[in-house]
Amino acid sequence: MNNRQKIIDTALELFNAHGAAAVGTNRIAQKLGISPGNLYYHFKNKQDIIRAIFEMIRADMAEVMKEIPSDLSTEASSAYLLGSMRVVWKYRFFYADLVALLHNDPELRRLFLAMRAHTVSTTMALYRRLIQAGQMNQPEHQWELDSLTLNTWIVATNWVRYLQTCKSDVDVSQADFERGVLHVYSLVMPYLPAQRREDFLRFYLAAQPD
Amino acid sequence: MNNRQKIIDTALELFNAHGAAAVGTNRIAQKLGISPGNLYYHFKNKQDIIRAIFEMIRADMAEVMKEIPSDLSTEASSAYLLGSMRVVWKYRFFYADLVALLHNDPELRRLFLAMRAHTVSTTMALYRRLIQAGQMNQPEHQWELDSLTLNTWIVATNWVRYLQTCKSDVDVSQADFERGVLHVYSLVMPYLPAQRREDFLRFYLAAQPD
Repeated sequence: MNNRQKIIDTALELFNAHGAAAVGTNRIAQKLGISPGNLYYHFKNKQDIIRAIFEMIRADMAEVMKEIPSDLSTEASSAYLLGSMRVVWKYRFFYADLVALLHNDPELRRLFLAMRAHTVSTTMALYRRLIQAGQMNQPEHQWELDSLTLNTWIVATNWVRYLQTCKSDVDVSQADFERGVLHVYSLVMPYLPAQRREDFLRFYLAAQPD
Repeated sequence: MNNRQKIIDTALELFNAHGAAAVGTNRIAQKLGISPGNLYYHFKNKQDIIRAIFEMIRADMAEVMKEIPSDLSTEASSAYLLGSMRVVWKYRFFYADLVALLHNDPELRRLFLAMRAHTVSTTMALYRRLIQAGQMNQPEHQWELDSLTLNTWIVATNWVRYLQTCKSDVDVSQADFERGVLHVYSLVMPYLPAQRREDFLRFYLAAQPD
């Protein structure tokens, strides 16, 4: 692995553990056992590292979002949702400190908003396809579908943050994290036909013994 | 107003404008035109000021939550929801930076979790009362009601944060903010009888011309 990528990975690890505000470039260089000069050869400052991490977030999210599952099964759409929530988990410092990070860097804000617009429109496309396939009931008004889509985004991106307010990082288990899928799915639940609701529950309970 | 309260109010104003991490005690004293020594006479450090602000959050939230509206009308339950969202708006720095603030102060975390437990159980009590009164359909499973309640909390407390990631503070209008009530209400919408859904829409559209 090249030094540039090692700096990014170490920064990500420290940011996730302590928050981006509490970690400076010196601490990143020290943890990695390189000189500050070596770090500055690759990155101008901390903001520059955060932008490089954002590029990884964008690439990971694009990979998850690259195609709506064509079979529309409960398994496939749950895996899709879990994939996007895992990206939030991997880069949780970013979502935890979102307001300050975007406030400090207008260009990062622009890139983030573009990614969010893409994620939200992909979710909307999935819901529309489920409706067309008779796998989801059409909400009465368009704004209900808009609101459902936006709420899906708010709950999915804030679930990790919710866990972080209850527990320290080391206490958040894989089971706690994956329970978030149930919470996000429950937003759509009332719009699902009875058969699909039962499919989801059977699938979910088989995966989660508690 | 005494100096202690003036310090708290100035800190709140600066924290909301710039984030708690970016504002130190010297800046608060300077803005207020008092000496750092005068500030330290009232507060040990910034964390001490944040705890004092949290006491105000807790008191404001307790005031909103003190009774579930007895008439259960759309107007009363929307006002109730709007009241709690206004508390989040008033102290938005706290909710924006929640993970770091609670990470830095375990006692504050304990107090916050107690407030959250109270808010969530009050919301659950409201839903149960609506179900008993035939104003809301009973979800099939208890976990759906648990999940609806938790999602209500997640969306209501993150709506301001959502706006702050899209726009700077000065660009967030009252209308943007109050649109959040529609998003939170839309979580409950699919569980409402048709008549109540129409009541809410009529009420909401009358209040929001766009």
